Amino acid sequence: MKSEGKHLPEDRFFDPDPAVRSVASDLYQEAACAPIVSPHGHVDPRLFSDPNATFGSPADLFIIPDHYVFRMLYSQGVALESLGVPRQDGDSVEQDHRKIWRTFCEYFHLFRGTPSGIWLTDELAAVFGITEKPGASNADRLFDLIAEKLASPDFSPRRLFERFNIEVLCTTDPATDTLGHHQAIRQSGWKGRILPTFRPDGVVNFDAPRGAWRANVDQLSEVSGIDVVDYKSFIRALEQRRAFFKSMGATATDHAALTPAAVELSPVEAEATFQRALRGDRNGADAARFTAHMLMEMARMSVEDGLVMQLHPGSFRNHNDIIFEKFGSDKGADIPVPTEYTRNLLPLLNKYGNDPRLTLILFTLDETTYSRELAPLAGHYPALKLGPPWWFFDSLNGIARYFDQVMETAGLYNTAGFNDDTRAFCSIPARHDVWRRASANWLGGLVARHIIDLPDARAMMQELTVALAKRAYHLD
Amino acid sequence: MKSEGKHLPEDRFFDPDPAVRSVASDLYQEAACAPIVSPHGHVDPRLFSDPNATFGSPADLFIIPDHYVFRMLYSQGVALESLGVPRQDGDSVEQDHRKIWRTFCEYFHLFRGTPSGIWLTDELAAVFGITEKPGASNADRLFDLIAEKLASPDFSPRRLFERFNIEVLCTTDPATDTLGHHQAIRQSGWKGRILPTFRPDGVVNFDAPRGAWRANVDQLSEVSGIDVVDYKSFIRALEQRRAFFKSMGATATDHAALTPAAVELSPVEAEATFQRALRGDRNGADAARFTAHMLMEMARMSVEDGLVMQLHPGSFRNHNDIIFEKFGSDKGADIPVPTEYTRNLLPLLNKYGNDPRLTLILFTLDETTYSRELAPLAGHYPALKLGPPWWFFDSLNGIARYFDQVMETAGLYNTAGFNDDTRAFCSIPARHDVWRRASANWLGGLVARHIIDLPDARAMMQELTVALAKRAYHLD
Amino acid sequence: MKSEGKHLPEDRFFDPDPAVRSVASDLYQEAACAPIVSPHGHVDPRLFSDPNATFGSPADLFIIPDHYVFRMLYSQGVALESLGVPRQDGDSVEQDHRKIWRTFCEYFHLFRGTPSGIWLTDELAAVFGITEKPGASNADRLFDLIAEKLASPDFSPRRLFERFNIEVLCTTDPATDTLGHHQAIRQSGWKGRILPTFRPDGVVNFDAPRGAWRANVDQLSEVSGIDVVDYKSFIRALEQRRAFFKSMGATATDHAALTPAAVELSPVEAEATFQRALRGDRNGADAARFTAHMLMEMARMSVEDGLVMQLHPGSFRNHNDIIFEKFGSDKGADIPVPTEYTRNLLPLLNKYGNDPRLTLILFTLDETTYSRELAPLAGHYPALKLGPPWWFFDSLNGIARYFDQVMETAGLYNTAGFNDDTRAFCSIPARHDVWRRASANWLGGLVARHIIDLPDARAMMQELTVALAKRAYHLD
Repeated sequence: MKSEGKHLPEDRFFDPDPAVRSVASDLYQEAACAPIVSPHGHVDPRLFSDPNATFGSPADLFIIPDHYVFRMLYSQGVALESLGVPRQDGDSVEQDHRKIWRTFCEYFHLFRGTPSGIWLTDELAAVFGITEKPGASNADRLFDLIAEKLASPDFSPRRLFERFNIEVLCTTDPATDTLGHHQAIRQSGWKGRILPTFRPDGVVNFDAPRGAWRANVDQLSEVSGIDVVDYKSFIRALEQRRAFFKSMGATATDHAALTPAAVELSPVEAEATFQRALRGDRNGADAARFTAHMLMEMARMSVEDGLVMQLHPGSFRNHNDIIFEKFGSDKGADIPVPTEYTRNLLPLLNKYGNDPRLTLILFTLDETTYSRELAPLAGHYPALKLGPPWWFFDSLNGIARYFDQVMETAGLYNTAGFNDDTRAFCSIPARHDVWRRASANWLGGLVARHIIDLPDARAMMQELTVALAKRAYHLD
Repeated sequence: MKSEGKHLPEDRFFDPDPAVRSVASDLYQEAACAPIVSPHGHVDPRLFSDPNATFGSPADLFIIPDHYVFRMLYSQGVALESLGVPRQDGDSVEQDHRKIWRTFCEYFHLFRGTPSGIWLTDELAAVFGITEKPGASNADRLFDLIAEKLASPDFSPRRLFERFNIEVLCTTDPATDTLGHHQAIRQSGWKGRILPTFRPDGVVNFDAPRGAWRANVDQLSEVSGIDVVDYKSFIRALEQRRAFFKSMGATATDHAALTPAAVELSPVEAEATFQRALRGDRNGADAARFTAHMLMEMARMSVEDGLVMQLHPGSFRNHNDIIFEKFGSDKGADIPVPTEYTRNLLPLLNKYGNDPRLTLILFTLDETTYSRELAPLAGHYPALKLGPPWWFFDSLNGIARYFDQVMETAGLYNTAGFNDDTRAFCSIPARHDVWRRASANWLGGLVARHIIDLPDARAMMQELTVALAKRAYHLD
Repeated sequence: MKSEGKHLPEDRFFDPDPAVRSVASDLYQEAACAPIVSPHGHVDPRLFSDPNATFGSPADLFIIPDHYVFRMLYSQGVALESLGVPRQDGDSVEQDHRKIWRTFCEYFHLFRGTPSGIWLTDELAAVFGITEKPGASNADRLFDLIAEKLASPDFSPRRLFERFNIEVLCTTDPATDTLGHHQAIRQSGWKGRILPTFRPDGVVNFDAPRGAWRANVDQLSEVSGIDVVDYKSFIRALEQRRAFFKSMGATATDHAALTPAAVELSPVEAEATFQRALRGDRNGADAARFTAHMLMEMARMSVEDGLVMQLHPGSFRNHNDIIFEKFGSDKGADIPVPTEYTRNLLPLLNKYGNDPRLTLILFTLDETTYSRELAPLAGHYPALKLGPPWWFFDSLNGIARYFDQVMETAGLYNTAGFNDDTRAFCSIPARHDVWRRASANWLGGLVARHIIDLPDARAMMQELTVALAKRAYHLD
């Protein structure tokens, strides 16, 4: 993407050693212009279905929906209400977006040395041409500058999609979604390639937040046209939805779980467990076992329909009850827990891990598993690929640790490139840029230490930029 | 602190890359002269209550009381008796301090590349003007040199406290302590600011070593003047002691525990558990549950009285029975265990983690929790701050890993600066110097890679040097 | 070892910073010519007992027996049959070694940035004088080149042993081995020093793969001449075998286990458990408890006979059932699991950890234990030494992490130097070279940052090159 006006330092994030920096810089130059492939994320397709959609105010764009940003202010005592984060009970929160923006600018120092700080700085510079550091003194001026741009047609989501040079963007959509916005995008004639991803968490997890499971199952019946009255019809309905998602261009599914446990229940037990849940006779053990069983089922379906399977385990969601009660999910209070893959995935890998039809992409929030479990597993099972550093670890240090701890054992070719995993659309170029710079820097270090030579480094850089992701996600 | 005579390399511990080193060196220069704030440690207040106190012989100062030092010699087959470490049974141990010192010098190579090696080297140079490496050939001469200085009034604890430019030093004191030495310091007219810290481990842990719990409770009755006959009077006595510590200048409490489990018992269960313990009807489950309950109670009291709460979990104390039987606690045989915070602290954080009146400073001996649990928790809960690298990790690499794994997610401002945590008073300047150099070096790396700019780095350096610690510990 | 013809870059693997590189390079020069001490590995003694033994074809040497190599091709969809890996059922696999070699060359890019890539490259250059990168286009030519050399007497195992400048090489041998090949080597008059290592896994683990335990015990009776009918005769037979191994030059034992659990059973319980196993009345709990008990017994025997004890825990063997059924053990499907040492080893360390007669060398596949458990344990218990980075972690990054996380706390002198742990004889010089370069680089970094001085670095380099290993394994 071409940035407006002033520039950030050309060689930022590279090792200051001249030998490393020079190779890294060369490798990065080639990668910088490559299109963006975004195979996993949470951008709202609504932004693109309506040709007149806008990003709203600067606070709408940068603060109110972004838990990466507001959690940091909250941790230092700033109330979420004062940042305009909507309450579940509809009680009033700050409506003056200029005031919200001012608070954000006053606390901008909190982001020093953080990935959010890097993305925000890059986004301001590259998208809005602003290279000043936000603070109390320039808050109002910056607000006006950004607001003015956001109001112009050049800053509509579709125009930015094109300007960002995005080749393909995958969203994440509940299994019960009718994909109306995706339909609308297709029918609009606009050429942006935006694909859905099948995420069945709400219907496979009896313990879905706020007791939503039953309602989700009813919705599943409705959208699939298959009356879910037992386990068999449930499975048929899911297969129907997967086929529908696939017809809408989906190439992948996504699964969250507290643990990566995979356990196949007998048909009788699966049916009995499902019936208990339908009757509202739920318990934690049933929920955990059924989720583990559905992971097996989803792997089976992936083998059959070819959808790439993603697994994102290990996040203890909604850790802070008060915040969850007041503001709901995704408010910066999801905290990782220790996660075990070797034993948990044993049944799944034994059944499907050698099958060339399956691609299973694993993520982790427990970095101890990189070198101990994930890299050895990915370096053996043909079906496995390792996803890029996730969430808190999508950062310069997080990426460096990933390269350090994964690559020697897994090998580059058993990894899945990058995904930005973001709902903040305008941060996408910044996030891919950090990955590309970090990749170039890693390879520069390998070349400078004669671990690989330059032709190998060039080939590896192309893989990291887009090729690995396109192959892993069947987007080529 | 001004050092005597010869100097160690000015740019020691900095990255050799010129770009990093130059920024680090500039940042360090500004920090080097700042006073020392030592908000947590184990220096004996006795050293300062008696104006005529001395540090004794070189062996008394460097070896006999310092388990960081003698554990390393023990690991290589040197008997603790031969190092003068006193036995519990009063049996004789080496009394010839020159001989002990000689043994230490002969084994000085064991400290190559270790933090103890760095501190000892710095202490010898800066406090005693000795830049020779200790060894068999110069052992006697060094002994005489140091002994002579230690005998002079310039090397009294109070004089060194002033020379070290210590602004405030916090000790750690049992809940049952009458703080007589702190009283004596106050009454002596000497201006050194030395504050107590409230540590109730001995009265909240039924399993205190050598069955000491009951005696500790009796002592609690005595010093508080509240007859501890049940759970309610126990709590009243603790509250009374906290108020007393606070009146003596304490700003914080400190809590050790094998795990950070926090579980609130019902009043009935708390009372029943406590009564069982009073009757001597103790069991491991009671002890663990009661300790977990008392963590909740202590958080509640901190919310009420404003004392900052420190939690140091995860050390398996007295792992080596033989050493414990012969020599007692704190003899280098405390070994870390895996530690979990996300689930363990859930009840405490849900009840008090959003309360602006609480500051809870967490430490760990399990570095896997930095990026997985502690940084995400501290980056969300307003009450939480992360303490600096603890114990084995108070080292150049330990600090670098801490910056690497904590800062991106927690943000600098959710950390608590440095504390030296030492009982070796004369090592305090060396320990703070290592931290300041490591901090400057970290920031130098961020500047050299354009992650932050120089003004941000300067502001962050001031935080790391003293500001974070003063704010976190309410010492400003 | 002198290499033939062309050379790889002299300063490979060193930090590009000139200050570090220059010291590292100097330190390495001194170490490069030192003989190789290989105290633990899996080379087949058969290679040396027969003076006419050869390494076979290039595929025999580089691919077919090396699970480090073929697992990577398998992970990318190459069938093990097509790589000539023999099937358990004797079914045919690829016999054309030129074709196998070609496949390997076509997939050589998979090894970019991996330790296997480094070793293969070094081995090709130093042993065979080949500095071309293998690929589809030169596969046949390289095959011919290597095959020709392998056929010449200069490339016999004994000649290469001498050319590699190996001072001593330890193999790993089952407790039931008659050490016939070791006998033959001794009797042949050839001077190469090749020593056995006592590995009793097959007779102490009731759960040995494919129900082999009972057969192993029968074999133990046969080779020891002691009829194993109960626990007591079992112990006597093991003691007899240890004495025999010792008489054949063994200085060490080796123990694998899923966990490092050590639990002493009462004589009655040990006998009852053993009797149940003899009767075929086996269960998982018995097997786990008996293995844990035998760890205690083996430590007791080591105290008595002076054999150094090695413990390699934490590998979940044969994770992939399909591969195990078809191809057997050691096929790249062994995956690490989280491992705990502090509590597991408590009984053993309390009983024997202070005993100067015991040397226990610990290894790990769980790097989280380096700084949390292993370094603190090794920095205290006289009997403990830490083995070098094992398996997946015998790599440039793995070694760097080991130095980073172990040395500050354990101290260099509580570590056991290097062992290559390989069955790929021709890769031994490459593996030791990587360790020596990585060691020199680590020390270069310490010198450049003034953490140690150059004389200390030289002394430490000598330790890392051979002295630590020789001392730890009683090979001096």
